[in-house]
Amino acid sequence: MKSLLIKSLLVLFALTTTAFAADPLPSWNDTATRQAIVAFIGKVTTPGSPDFVPVEERIATFDNDGTLWAEKPMYFQFLFGFDRVRSLAPQHPEWATTEPYASLLKGDVKAALAGGVPAATQILLSTHAGMTTDEYDVMVREWIATARHPTTGRPYTEMVYQPMLELLAYLRANGFKTFIVSGGENAFMRPWVEKTYGIPPEQVVGSSIKTRFELRDGKPVLVRLPEWDFVDDNDGKPIGINSHIGRRPIASFGNSDGDLEMLQWTTAGRGARFALLVHHTDAAREWAYDRQSTIGHLDKALDEARQKGWTVVDMKSDWKVVYPGAAR
Amino acid sequence: MKSLLIKSLLVLFALTTTAFAADPLPSWNDTATRQAIVAFIGKVTTPGSPDFVPVEERIATFDNDGTLWAEKPMYFQFLFGFDRVRSLAPQHPEWATTEPYASLLKGDVKAALAGGVPAATQILLSTHAGMTTDEYDVMVREWIATARHPTTGRPYTEMVYQPMLELLAYLRANGFKTFIVSGGENAFMRPWVEKTYGIPPEQVVGSSIKTRFELRDGKPVLVRLPEWDFVDDNDGKPIGINSHIGRRPIASFGNSDGDLEMLQWTTAGRGARFALLVHHTDAAREWAYDRQSTIGHLDKALDEARQKGWTVVDMKSDWKVVYPGAAR
Repeated sequence: MKSLLIKSLLVLFALTTTAFAADPLPSWNDTATRQAIVAFIGKVTTPGSPDFVPVEERIATFDNDGTLWAEKPMYFQFLFGFDRVRSLAPQHPEWATTEPYASLLKGDVKAALAGGVPAATQILLSTHAGMTTDEYDVMVREWIATARHPTTGRPYTEMVYQPMLELLAYLRANGFKTFIVSGGENAFMRPWVEKTYGIPPEQVVGSSIKTRFELRDGKPVLVRLPEWDFVDDNDGKPIGINSHIGRRPIASFGNSDGDLEMLQWTTAGRGARFALLVHHTDAAREWAYDRQSTIGHLDKALDEARQKGWTVVDMKSDWKVVYPGAAR
Repeated sequence: MKSLLIKSLLVLFALTTTAFAADPLPSWNDTATRQAIVAFIGKVTTPGSPDFVPVEERIATFDNDGTLWAEKPMYFQFLFGFDRVRSLAPQHPEWATTEPYASLLKGDVKAALAGGVPAATQILLSTHAGMTTDEYDVMVREWIATARHPTTGRPYTEMVYQPMLELLAYLRANGFKTFIVSGGENAFMRPWVEKTYGIPPEQVVGSSIKTRFELRDGKPVLVRLPEWDFVDDNDGKPIGINSHIGRRPIASFGNSDGDLEMLQWTTAGRGARFALLVHHTDAAREWAYDRQSTIGHLDKALDEARQKGWTVVDMKSDWKVVYPGAAR
C-alpha cells in the first residue's frame, strides 16, 4: 500500500509539473489550431464554466494511422504483414507461384496489391492467424522492436508525431481518458502503445479477427482465426466506441475520411465538443496528401470540417517538429 | 486544473482512509475465504515480493448476475424484458395471441419460458431493439430507478451484495482496475454500474446486439438491431476479455459454469492468480442453488474449483450480511 501512496504522490507531482509548466505543447506553433485546443481544454475543465465536463466524462478518442503515427508508403501493419510473408515463405512453397504472395516475395509490392483490398486482406488474414494470441503478441513485440521503416530507416515507434504525444499528455493532465480508435488491429497495437503513447491496452479499440477458446493439454489458449470479427473504420468507429467504451467522446482526433463518422458522432453530443483533423501538408518533413491518396484518403471529411468549423491541423505551419528527437 | 488537483488529493485521502481503516471488508466473516482474499491482495501489492504485480497489470474481472447482484427468480435483464413487453403490448395487438408474449401478458412466466432459451431470446431481441442507443439508455435508466424486485420489493440496485461492494473497493484501493465481464448486455449495465459499483461504463464487457450508424436529418444515431453481436458467456468470456481488455486478468470472480472459462483463462497466466466462486448457500437471506438450477447453474466449475484450490464463498458462513443496509 505504501508503494501505491508513493506512486499516487508521484503522479500528483507529475500532474502539477505538467499543468503548470510554461508550455504543455512545446512542439506546436502559436497558431489558431493550438489556440483552439487550449481554449477547448480550458473551458471543459474550468469549474463553474457553462461548458464544464466532469472528469469521468472526459473521453478523447484518437485514430492511429496518420493521426498518431505515419502511414506512408502504406499502413505499417501491412508492412508487418509483408515481413510476415517473407518469414513464413519457407513453410509455404506454393506462395512462390500464387498471388499476391509471389509478387511480394519478388519485392514488387505494387503488383502484389494490384488486387486491391481483397489482396491486402488475404495477406493480413493468412499471416496474422493460425497462432495463439500469446504467440502473436510475441511476434508483434519482436517486429516492432527490430523493424525499420523502408524510407526513413527509423523504428516505427519513432515515426509517431511529437506534437500529438504532447497533446495526449496534455489531455491526460487535464483529467481526460485517452483512447485509440483505429482501423488497425487491436492486437497489433496493444503490445506497444502503452510505452509509446501512454495509452493502456484496455483503451485501444481496433479492428479484430475472431478467436477460438481451446484447452490444449488442459491449458486454455485463444487461437486466432482467419476471419474478421469487426472492422473499426468509417461507421465502425462510432459502433466500436459504443460497444467498447459505452460513452460518447467529447473530443476526437483523426486524419482521413475513415474518421468522419467518429467526428460526426463526437460532435453530435450535447455540450462542448471538439473535432480535429491532421492534414498532411508537409512533403519536406513527412508526406503531403489528401484527396488523391488511397491510404489516408481525406476528402469529404475535409469539406465537412471546413463547413462545420472543426479544427484542421496544417502540419507544415502548425507543428514545429514532426517526429520525436528532431530539433525544434 | 485546480479542481483536478483537489480531486486527486481527495482520491488520495480516500485511498489512505480505505487502506488504513481497521477493516476494509467489514461484511466478511474472518474465515478462510476472507483470509485467502487478503493474502492474495497483500502478496501482489508488496514491493519486493516474488508475487508483486505492477499496478497497470492489476486487472480484476467480475461476473455480474449472481456474483455482484442477485439473479433469482431469473436474470434481472429478463425481468426488464418482461416489463418492456407489458409496456409495448398496446402497440402489438398480435402479442395477445402469439407466444411467448401471450403467456407473459397473462402473467404466466413459466409458460412463456416453456420455449427455453429461444423464447427468452425472442423476448429480449424484440423488446431491446428498434430504438436508438440514446433512447435505450433512457429506458434502462427509468426502469432501474423505478422497478422493484417481484419477491423482495427492493429496487434492483439494492439487491447487490454488500460484501462484493467492499471487495471491489478494496481491490481498487490497492491499485486494481475492476471490470465487469457478464453474460448480461453491456448497454443494460452501463447506465447504472458506475453509481452502483464504482465501475465506469468503459470497464463493462457484456453481451451485445448489433447497431447500425445512420444520419437522421443530418444527426448521427446508432440504431439497435434485433441480432446478436456477441454473447459474453462461457468461452465468450475469455474471448471478450481478450477483445475488450487485451490483458489477462490476475483475479476473476464468478458464480456459475458460465464463468468457468474466464477462471481457467485467468489462472493459466504466469505469476500469482486468484479465482473465486460465489456459492449461493443461503436460502434464508438470499437463495440456495447450484447443480440443479438453470439460472446460475454451478456444477463443473464447483468441481474444478475444489480440485484446483480456487476460493469458494459459502454465502451463509462467509458473509455477515448479503444486501446493503442490513444489520451486521
